[in-house]
Amino acid sequence: MAHINVPEGVPGIRSLVMFRPETGKYLYELAQVLLRGESTLSEAERELIAAHVSSRNQCFFCMSSHAAAARCLYGDEEALIVDEVLHDVQNAPVSDKMKALLNIAGKVQILGKEVSPEDITMARAAGATDRELHDTVLIAAAFCMYNRYVDGLASFTPTDPEAYVEMGKRMAKGYVLPQQQ
Amino acid sequence: MAHINVPEGVPGIRSLVMFRPETGKYLYELAQVLLRGESTLSEAERELIAAHVSSRNQCFFCMSSHAAAARCLYGDEEALIVDEVLHDVQNAPVSDKMKALLNIAGKVQILGKEVSPEDITMARAAGATDRELHDTVLIAAAFCMYNRYVDGLASFTPTDPEAYVEMGKRMAKGYVLPQQQ
Repeated sequence: MAHINVPEGVPGIRSLVMFRPETGKYLYELAQVLLRGESTLSEAERELIAAHVSSRNQCFFCMSSHAAAARCLYGDEEALIVDEVLHDVQNAPVSDKMKALLNIAGKVQILGKEVSPEDITMARAAGATDRELHDTVLIAAAFCMYNRYVDGLASFTPTDPEAYVEMGKRMAKGYVLPQQQ
Repeated sequence: MAHINVPEGVPGIRSLVMFRPETGKYLYELAQVLLRGESTLSEAERELIAAHVSSRNQCFFCMSSHAAAARCLYGDEEALIVDEVLHDVQNAPVSDKMKALLNIAGKVQILGKEVSPEDITMARAAGATDRELHDTVLIAAAFCMYNRYVDGLASFTPTDPEAYVEMGKRMAKGYVLPQQQ
């Protein structure tokens, strides 16, 4: 049971933003522009960064739902990339640029200061732009917030994998604040 | 020097949101509603939670600026409360409710799952409401984002304490997205 009185049976962050839409509004709008807005990183790649950080923060709800969204966006042919990244970034079948960005996201998950000039140099050498570096750091930082929000209030976390497949399909279409019940 | 090409000499998060106002907009609006919006926690108390979490995340820029804002909002008579909380929460001259909320914020800083039912029970026994519990967790989670954003991109961090006094006065009035240069 959640630590506060949120709508029952509504999973994860949705129950929390229904409790407090005044803040939820900006949380959803930030996710929408970061993960679905115009970018040279694909929506699948950005969801992968979100799932990777959520996995490192041990947030089962966010990891499962954003991994499902990433699988949906990669499509059937490439969906396994997501599981390989969650298992082992360095040996996963992604580009050197994505490996370097995932490495930076992993450093941000520990603490901002962990990102070194060498991490940035390596990402640039693999073709990363300022905007891609910025967005990678902000996606990683934002998931350090979302993960703590969801788990810090002990929101409802479904255990049935099927629940996340449906969630992933909905999330792939975009982030829209749920209506209050 | 910052890891990406942001306006020179502009400190902390301001330089980053000038680089990318599309995301900056929501970061500032979230801070405004959480720290300045209607609440039964005073603005000073909410800034204190922000400074406490930023201190634990070793983010010198956010810790110094939000501590300055909190001192400004507490006023001259009570400004030392801020320094006492940053030094030692348990022995600081704040209410039992604030101690319990700062304890929860400290748990969120580690990881969401660290917040236990006992932490929540203790805060409720000291008078905390659902809305106060929610906002404390979200303020703490949000600063786990802001801190990582500011340090993860190595934004300019002034070392002169006077710079933060001025910043604190401006922040006490509210969070407004800076205009692009």
